[in-house]
Amino acid sequence: MIDLKKLVKVHSKEEDLSASNKTISNKINTGNFFEDFIIGQKITHPLPRTITDGDVSFYIALTGSRFALNSSDELAREFGYEKKPLDDLLMFHLTFGKSVQDISLNAIANLGYAQISFANPVFVGDTVNLETEVIGLKENSSGKSGVVYVHSIGYNQNKQEVLNLKRWVMVHKRDKTVNSGINEVPSFEKTTEILEEIQIPTLGPIDTNVTGGKYFWEDYVEGERLNHSEGITVDNSDHTLATKLYQNNAKVHFDDFMMQSTPVGQRLMYGGHVISIARSISFNGLQNAQWIYAINSGAHANPTFAGDTIYAFTEVIEKIEHSRSDIGLLRLRTVGLKNMKATDIDSTFDENGKYLKNVVLDLDYTVVIPKKQ
Amino acid sequence: MIDLKKLVKVHSKEEDLSASNKTISNKINTGNFFEDFIIGQKITHPLPRTITDGDVSFYIALTGSRFALNSSDELAREFGYEKKPLDDLLMFHLTFGKSVQDISLNAIANLGYAQISFANPVFVGDTVNLETEVIGLKENSSGKSGVVYVHSIGYNQNKQEVLNLKRWVMVHKRDKTVNSGINEVPSFEKTTEILEEIQIPTLGPIDTNVTGGKYFWEDYVEGERLNHSEGITVDNSDHTLATKLYQNNAKVHFDDFMMQSTPVGQRLMYGGHVISIARSISFNGLQNAQWIYAINSGAHANPTFAGDTIYAFTEVIEKIEHSRSDIGLLRLRTVGLKNMKATDIDSTFDENGKYLKNVVLDLDYTVVIPKKQ
Amino acid sequence: MIDLKKLVKVHSKEEDLSASNKTISNKINTGNFFEDFIIGQKITHPLPRTITDGDVSFYIALTGSRFALNSSDELAREFGYEKKPLDDLLMFHLTFGKSVQDISLNAIANLGYAQISFANPVFVGDTVNLETEVIGLKENSSGKSGVVYVHSIGYNQNKQEVLNLKRWVMVHKRDKTVNSGINEVPSFEKTTEILEEIQIPTLGPIDTNVTGGKYFWEDYVEGERLNHSEGITVDNSDHTLATKLYQNNAKVHFDDFMMQSTPVGQRLMYGGHVISIARSISFNGLQNAQWIYAINSGAHANPTFAGDTIYAFTEVIEKIEHSRSDIGLLRLRTVGLKNMKATDIDSTFDENGKYLKNVVLDLDYTVVIPKKQ
Repeated sequence: MIDLKKLVKVHSKEEDLSASNKTISNKINTGNFFEDFIIGQKITHPLPRTITDGDVSFYIALTGSRFALNSSDELAREFGYEKKPLDDLLMFHLTFGKSVQDISLNAIANLGYAQISFANPVFVGDTVNLETEVIGLKENSSGKSGVVYVHSIGYNQNKQEVLNLKRWVMVHKRDKTVNSGINEVPSFEKTTEILEEIQIPTLGPIDTNVTGGKYFWEDYVEGERLNHSEGITVDNSDHTLATKLYQNNAKVHFDDFMMQSTPVGQRLMYGGHVISIARSISFNGLQNAQWIYAINSGAHANPTFAGDTIYAFTEVIEKIEHSRSDIGLLRLRTVGLKNMKATDIDSTFDENGKYLKNVVLDLDYTVVIPKKQ
Repeated sequence: MIDLKKLVKVHSKEEDLSASNKTISNKINTGNFFEDFIIGQKITHPLPRTITDGDVSFYIALTGSRFALNSSDELAREFGYEKKPLDDLLMFHLTFGKSVQDISLNAIANLGYAQISFANPVFVGDTVNLETEVIGLKENSSGKSGVVYVHSIGYNQNKQEVLNLKRWVMVHKRDKTVNSGINEVPSFEKTTEILEEIQIPTLGPIDTNVTGGKYFWEDYVEGERLNHSEGITVDNSDHTLATKLYQNNAKVHFDDFMMQSTPVGQRLMYGGHVISIARSISFNGLQNAQWIYAINSGAHANPTFAGDTIYAFTEVIEKIEHSRSDIGLLRLRTVGLKNMKATDIDSTFDENGKYLKNVVLDLDYTVVIPKKQ
Repeated sequence: MIDLKKLVKVHSKEEDLSASNKTISNKINTGNFFEDFIIGQKITHPLPRTITDGDVSFYIALTGSRFALNSSDELAREFGYEKKPLDDLLMFHLTFGKSVQDISLNAIANLGYAQISFANPVFVGDTVNLETEVIGLKENSSGKSGVVYVHSIGYNQNKQEVLNLKRWVMVHKRDKTVNSGINEVPSFEKTTEILEEIQIPTLGPIDTNVTGGKYFWEDYVEGERLNHSEGITVDNSDHTLATKLYQNNAKVHFDDFMMQSTPVGQRLMYGGHVISIARSISFNGLQNAQWIYAINSGAHANPTFAGDTIYAFTEVIEKIEHSRSDIGLLRLRTVGLKNMKATDIDSTFDENGKYLKNVVLDLDYTVVIPKKQ
């Protein structure tokens, strides 16, 4: 029986297991360090996730995304889908988040992405999984850390591929005194391959009153730069809700107490959230580019913090014809900026070829956009 | 192949399209200015939205709303619905949000609303749309801006009317040197017409243990004032999540960097969020008034900012009989206050007839409430 | 017709009902005070709630919870469920929130919980209710307040019990000058009884690649302490969104203006949110302990505020055999800490036997965890 005189106490000092008689458990998963990775190693990441309408609403609330195909079942049916497909980036975050515990819990930095593709659409009700193979390892000359190169594939419940990506991450070494000198760096293609078959229904004429944009593949020219007009300020609750929704447990994003004792002094925004915000801002000018076909590469040029306002501009790098007559592709470069409007920046680099400090994202990706009919 | 020595760079300075060889795109939709509107003009707003359970949960989390009918499918079935209908204000925000890009992106102020009605209930799974007609234009004497009067109608996927509203907005002129002198001001009714047929199932006796309130139509008297006891503080993430969820892209709500260079110096809270918070607070005393029949008019008397705590009081302006014997209507005035409790304010006006600075909302609306059985 | 010269005014000063001709309503429910409770009194709490996928997504976003069973319908089916059951704590919050208006609106403090059990799983689509009986009353010697002891039972739409709990709350007296001297304190069991029948499907072998943890009932030892490695910082929007989602209307959590004039000077975090955060952090080390069988008792040792980072450690108090061969139980003590890592604290008490100021939660609970197969 609980002593109700001591109402607020659940255990007494006497009960409190003291250091002398308790065992510190070794069951805490501290994640993998550089030495724990082997080239060719395969990892099945835990935590399959069934995607719901709740996730979709959350994504809209977090990003303000307005791409029509992902907002309306009615429109999706007109496009030939059974119901609205998931925003490609939402699927990316939910699937990718699973790899943090195994790959990047001890990461110093997410250095880059390459050859990301979205082979099949994902819908509410689907359950996504992720598997990873280690494809490269490079110990840093300092001996304190190394770069791990991985290839991850995401699947739905029918084992259809929904995500394919390569990334490289700088990871702490467990033992900084022993050097292996390993230097096996894989090659990456500069762009993701474009396949003959694209899993998008054959499109009829697009009602621009519904999608909100009147421009199609033919209207864009290489070298064209779109200075998107919106800016979105991100607060701490926004980006931490996003990171937790994606079950991404990288501590730098949500442990402010720990981050206070680091040089940055505060929580770092998940780079994927910056990608999503920039993509959402790019709607104005790219309203009909409703499908991300691939992310060719991406860099988080500078960190983003709570209170920063994200702006973006997009350059059309390449217009790509496809054998299908209803659609074409655009290779785009969307640059995310913090606290600087797109119209206030020309080159993203300083005189030494380094990213300017207001540049937070340099994303090279390929979208599908309908042709005129 | 990516040069992996420069890990964090996606494009080089050389690749970076410089001002000399790139074209600034004209595809950015900068919204309509005063001169772009013509009386009689009809606009189909883009972005049909399929409403989900995710939106409903978000609305409860954002507002703390406790009206029982919108929370329980079981109760809704007892009331004669197939499932719980959407909160009228959530439907309003999701539908209304579509008009911002076309009507109020360049608004200086949302001046008022009138004759808002909610003809048919909306349910999870429905897809909503919005169409607008310009019904009035009045250039301001300054020549810098003008007032645009519009009439918008929202529909569900079966083309049933779910929202009908008039509003007027002060919009920037594109060219402040040319004056048209236009002065076509429509008339508005002071209250929304009450129809013979109300789309609410015939109600049996209400279980007050379930709805949380024991008062019915007969219990209220004209002139009665309810000083609601709750206050809800709104933070930046709350109101910006709300605005983004509604795909309302009015920059003043979520671009803090831009707002820092304006007199207010920070993001403005979406007025609709204040309405929702005030309505949620009004639950205590109006628990059985679960249906908003109409919003007769509304004014955002002063701006609301993050950190403000919203309080509210409600006055019963008029008791309205209906030919149905199971329900009656109450015309109410709910006043939203910031950082001042309802019991601490008497009149909402100063000696000059201006709203006091703590008054943020003056809402005149009509609710349906069951009669005693 | 509205006078459009006064665009932003909905009511005039003349219309404004002044103190002289209006009636202040007595319809505001001010909650129960100590004197309003009678031993044996039964209360049916209003607001049945249909639980949706939106609630589930919100819970993941608010807590970062990664327990696999609650994230994946596919996995739940492998475990023998029809679909993923709700996280026990999410169900707790949604059900418990209903009791605030009647029981703890005028609470000075939630003093403790005891004998909480979760008899049947809850699923998306279920509608939950709560009923309470007053089981004890003890006036404080100061005469200003008293402790109310209640026993609450939550039901689903089929009248199956989903929650059973006892708690005691210190409540203000309405009249501090009249003393009743009542002192009827019930007894509580130190632990919740463990029944022969546990409503969990018979489990086959568990795929640890899916659940993310490789430890089973046999692996844990009494006296073992798990210093969980993660910390989660909670901001104002997070905890107020949580509290509002649960329709918990205790003012201390979301009325900052009111709280500024109290000694704490700011909003208090809902203690249940701290429990959820601590449980989420305990995932690392207890990945397979996916079912909370009971909460034996709990105390909120110190208040938690926005900006605090929560850490946690867990001690294995007792290993409990069950007649079922596929599962066992662990009685655990999870201690929540603010702004102090689990590795930086030994005993949770100071030399006088008082909780240290960084200790925010002392939770004694029992989980079900599979045995090895």
